[in-house]
Amino acid sequence: MTTLDDLLNPRSIAIVGASDDPTRIGGRPLSHMIRQRFEGAVHPVNPSRETVQGLRAYPSLAEIEGDVDFVLVAVPAASVCGVVRQAAAKRAKTVMVLSSGFAEMGGDGIALQDELCALARETGVRVVGPNCLGAFNAAMRFFPTFTSTIDRARPEPGGISIASQSGAYGSHIYMVSHLRGLGIGYWMTTGNEADLHVAEVIKLYAEREDVHTIMAYAESIKDGPMLIEALEGARANRIPVIFMKVGRSAVGAEAASSHTASLAGEDAIYDAVLRQYGAYRARSTEEMLDIAYACRPRIYPAGKRLGVVTISGGAGVLIADAAEDYGLDVAPMPEDMQAELKALLPFASARNPVDVTAQFFNDLTLIPRFTRAMLDRGGYDGLIGFWTSVAGSPLLADKLLGHLTETMSHYENRLFLHCLLAPEEVRKRYEDAGFPCFEDATRTVAVMAALMFFGQAFAWRGGDLLAVPDPVEFPDGPLSERGAKEILQAAGLPMVDDVLVTTASHAASTATLMDGPVAMKIVSPDIAHKTEIGGVMLGVEGADAAEAAFHHIMANAVTAMPLAQIDGVLISPMVSGGIECIVGAKIDPVFGPMVMFGLGGILTEVLKDVAFRRAPFGPAVAREMIDGLKGAAVLKGARGTPPADLDALADAISKLSLFAAANADRLESVEMNPLRALPDRCLALDALIVKKRN
Amino acid sequence: MTTLDDLLNPRSIAIVGASDDPTRIGGRPLSHMIRQRFEGAVHPVNPSRETVQGLRAYPSLAEIEGDVDFVLVAVPAASVCGVVRQAAAKRAKTVMVLSSGFAEMGGDGIALQDELCALARETGVRVVGPNCLGAFNAAMRFFPTFTSTIDRARPEPGGISIASQSGAYGSHIYMVSHLRGLGIGYWMTTGNEADLHVAEVIKLYAEREDVHTIMAYAESIKDGPMLIEALEGARANRIPVIFMKVGRSAVGAEAASSHTASLAGEDAIYDAVLRQYGAYRARSTEEMLDIAYACRPRIYPAGKRLGVVTISGGAGVLIADAAEDYGLDVAPMPEDMQAELKALLPFASARNPVDVTAQFFNDLTLIPRFTRAMLDRGGYDGLIGFWTSVAGSPLLADKLLGHLTETMSHYENRLFLHCLLAPEEVRKRYEDAGFPCFEDATRTVAVMAALMFFGQAFAWRGGDLLAVPDPVEFPDGPLSERGAKEILQAAGLPMVDDVLVTTASHAASTATLMDGPVAMKIVSPDIAHKTEIGGVMLGVEGADAAEAAFHHIMANAVTAMPLAQIDGVLISPMVSGGIECIVGAKIDPVFGPMVMFGLGGILTEVLKDVAFRRAPFGPAVAREMIDGLKGAAVLKGARGTPPADLDALADAISKLSLFAAANADRLESVEMNPLRALPDRCLALDALIVKKRN
Repeated sequence: MTTLDDLLNPRSIAIVGASDDPTRIGGRPLSHMIRQRFEGAVHPVNPSRETVQGLRAYPSLAEIEGDVDFVLVAVPAASVCGVVRQAAAKRAKTVMVLSSGFAEMGGDGIALQDELCALARETGVRVVGPNCLGAFNAAMRFFPTFTSTIDRARPEPGGISIASQSGAYGSHIYMVSHLRGLGIGYWMTTGNEADLHVAEVIKLYAEREDVHTIMAYAESIKDGPMLIEALEGARANRIPVIFMKVGRSAVGAEAASSHTASLAGEDAIYDAVLRQYGAYRARSTEEMLDIAYACRPRIYPAGKRLGVVTISGGAGVLIADAAEDYGLDVAPMPEDMQAELKALLPFASARNPVDVTAQFFNDLTLIPRFTRAMLDRGGYDGLIGFWTSVAGSPLLADKLLGHLTETMSHYENRLFLHCLLAPEEVRKRYEDAGFPCFEDATRTVAVMAALMFFGQAFAWRGGDLLAVPDPVEFPDGPLSERGAKEILQAAGLPMVDDVLVTTASHAASTATLMDGPVAMKIVSPDIAHKTEIGGVMLGVEGADAAEAAFHHIMANAVTAMPLAQIDGVLISPMVSGGIECIVGAKIDPVFGPMVMFGLGGILTEVLKDVAFRRAPFGPAVAREMIDGLKGAAVLKGARGTPPADLDALADAISKLSLFAAANADRLESVEMNPLRALPDRCLALDALIVKKRN
Repeated sequence: MTTLDDLLNPRSIAIVGASDDPTRIGGRPLSHMIRQRFEGAVHPVNPSRETVQGLRAYPSLAEIEGDVDFVLVAVPAASVCGVVRQAAAKRAKTVMVLSSGFAEMGGDGIALQDELCALARETGVRVVGPNCLGAFNAAMRFFPTFTSTIDRARPEPGGISIASQSGAYGSHIYMVSHLRGLGIGYWMTTGNEADLHVAEVIKLYAEREDVHTIMAYAESIKDGPMLIEALEGARANRIPVIFMKVGRSAVGAEAASSHTASLAGEDAIYDAVLRQYGAYRARSTEEMLDIAYACRPRIYPAGKRLGVVTISGGAGVLIADAAEDYGLDVAPMPEDMQAELKALLPFASARNPVDVTAQFFNDLTLIPRFTRAMLDRGGYDGLIGFWTSVAGSPLLADKLLGHLTETMSHYENRLFLHCLLAPEEVRKRYEDAGFPCFEDATRTVAVMAALMFFGQAFAWRGGDLLAVPDPVEFPDGPLSERGAKEILQAAGLPMVDDVLVTTASHAASTATLMDGPVAMKIVSPDIAHKTEIGGVMLGVEGADAAEAAFHHIMANAVTAMPLAQIDGVLISPMVSGGIECIVGAKIDPVFGPMVMFGLGGILTEVLKDVAFRRAPFGPAVAREMIDGLKGAAVLKGARGTPPADLDALADAISKLSLFAAANADRLESVEMNPLRALPDRCLALDALIVKKRN
């Protein structure tokens, strides 16, 4: 098992392709290591020089005495695999390849990268890159990277670490962090990811005591299960992972694939997986840094109730608006407490947002009194205070801080974020007292929402209750609707009753027994699109009509597909009422079995109002999928129809997820469409299972 | 006609309720004016003192020799109206009331405010406030305000001006502007708005040569027509209005109404009006300031094509993602030009985003060459350059700036925004060269989208082509469906053919003539909910069925509403196919006739996917409404149905807007629901006109 120490805490480093020129790729890492006084042994390898940047140079790795833990490579692509072999012979744990000319170039570069990948497996040496910008371990002053950024911004250790697929953008993220005073402990760029992926870097960070927050940037994820393992590890250790997965848009995805030489995959899937496993997806770099900054107190509220205390009513309105955008609950204070506060200060708004007005100038104790009331009686999971530049004035800043510190000392683990305009030294005193500070109110709300997301993710229990069933034995060949229904019914999924008939007279008697209009559909493993060939008739009523329909459907099928195997005609009662849904699962190439739920029709096809989750999951997660739909209200009776049985629906979605997980290796997709959500149950009217092509 | 000079450029000011204590409401404005050396005459009014803050004090306004242009009032609410009368006698143009105790207190305060309002009308004196924080005119050093913010941040004149309903938040906006180095020329808070509203302040700003950008903050708009006049004026003068209309959310709206003592109204209406009249609605204060800052070059691209040039592929992906979020078009470069750039630099991505890679370090001329190619051949309306901290390094910053300045000198009026991390003095040099700079890429894209919005708004022509028809003579009493249809048909709206019958035999013959299934509906001005009383039958086919249906409907109507006036039964052919839409108009209390368009059903009722525009407007605006729907693709054939005739649909929506505008003073609402959008036309199947209650 690789550890982060194997990668970034070596006793010795060799730089193959070391250059005397500190502005070149092979020169800059060496220069960093010398100037920053890395304490381990540093061995330049350069066959044409005696010394490099004042250090003794070796003609080859083999010439160095003893083992070399870490080998940094800056030689042309064609020579890289040879270096890896030599590194293995020197018992190196890690080879980091800065050189480009691999998969990103296409053609021969792809083959070269495949060879590098195979070599990593064969030798057990971990390969970072190729085509990467390097990494650093700030505490150990270890800087195997040719970024020039650290010349302008000396890394200071801190609890935040960065994993980035992109080198240039990874440098940018580091630089912005530095400018904001955030200490970055570890920084790793993974480039083409022949062996080490961003996902594994996150996993290794999440195992560390000295990492408390992880920032990640990726344009594609190659190893879905590793990412999930990483995120589960981080969640278990209460380490927030803030993730920028870019390439959301069509143009962005295209730019990403030309940039990293791998396809981005479906964005909605990434979105769902990150959310499901407790990583927060940041939409901008600034948002990512805002959140990381606010993680410093390591307080993650496990609810969504937001209390707001402000000295400007306008700011209160603004914050309430933003809170709704971010799904937070600006719940009102209890009525009796409102009355009490009103008695204290008649001008105040006591509801929430609580507005203490300019009266605060005259009586600073209003703040602790109102704050205590909110915490004691409002039951808020987090608080935002809006103080504008008033709190930054020399007259008031420290007094207010004193009151806040004293007040909050009585409440453990309650998050209090502050909006204020203050000189840096004042802001720093707030931060040191455990109060993250922002200038902009809307950004403050966004950060609160993220920290509450983490709090809820960390509090999440229920992943271990699932019993994934045994895989199902699929029959040979394609599955008909009838076959799919039988399999899914056996898996506990609610299927409409149906009868397979092979004669017109059986059709007639079955329709009579069903007592009401029936649906009749051709059954054939060879006919996937039944409606198109005239193989479906709905609302058939009575024995005569059923007999006629049977003949009609059979004739249509034979005409359209004379060679198809026909099993007969499936008859089922027409189910009226309820709301049409669609539940399906497909096996994603990156993340495996992903379940989709939507309301079908326009909402699914045009508005893409669908929810995804990775299988398997229980009914609680399924319920989140339902509730997360924009059109969820339809299931709850919004349009005059009676509310659907959401428990039954969640149960069906969860069961499909268990089925998909159990059979992921032999499935391509499975779908129940429509699944009718009725007031007292739900019922699949059709089913389709597509087996994996071999 | 009031001018901004009447309000904020007086020759003399009297402060009624002037205090010797510079921290009190009546003391601070005086202290500001003395310290900031306002050049006009300053007269404290205080009956109990000889001097106030060193100036001669007058016992009353009347005692002051000569006229007083501006009267600032800081006396208890009950005395304010008396002061206004005295001010009128002194021929004051403006009375600004800082005092609180008016409508925001409810009860007697409301009556007092009404009196103040009436007094303003009667005397012609303009009243600002009450319950406002004041204003300033930075160039004239005129500071009639008790905000303490300007003690911490001395106003420097500039082309940006602020209009804010909220005092405390208005101060905050000023302070943040100041901290960002934005000069604020005029600053006005309007408080309770007894007379002067934020809308009029915007109008007065928009008339000024010395105002080039307007930032506005409001929790409610009381005078819709004034706002529209203001926005039209600003648009005509190419002055961007960046508007924070808060109280979007339920909690926010409630907080706003308790804060400003007026209801916020429907947010979607505000959203539509601001957009329609060319004001950009900012979602956060930071966004508002970002945009105002970037307005400095006064370049507003009139299209949406965005070119991106970057030294980080990752940043290019990120920017492309954000561009899609903001509706911008990251269109590719022409193929031949891509090939040319690739020849120049094989590692580059030449498509757009254009990635010049780290090669840029070695050859800075890549930037002007790539930029020229983008401007000459890509046809982009605006460019974003991403340079991270590289452009901030002393070695490169000025060289890059030189190249950029030289390049852009060949292209007039092309906007080029830059993302860079640089020391303030470097950023300032970029700004002075006409290049707004941002740290965060996503924020840069948001700003570009806003400036493009203004460019398109300023380029908008077509408001003057509309001929609003004469108002319609409505009959007395409520209108039946039949009556509504006749009126709308006469207004040029496409109505399904129908025949009113009063006998069963006429029903039978009519149904026969229509040749196919018909719809039959009771016609009565007294029956609004026809379906509920069994007054509607659909799909009636043949003479016998029509006869039976007639009897059935009449019987139901008589049973349900024995006293209703029954005009007969309306028969019309069933219209099959097409897509059901809903078009309506209602008379909004703030903005007058507002037209709504949506796809009906879930999309309208649950997802609120509807578009609003203020009437009247032409078909081009109606087409924007259609295209702006999330479900617009449904009308364009997304779900297998043939595309609807969008020209016919836009024409109908526009015609309804003309009807609504012409009859706004006697209408409550008008609705065509459903309006069926067919491949070759559109057709209203039902209509409802509700006249205004007198």
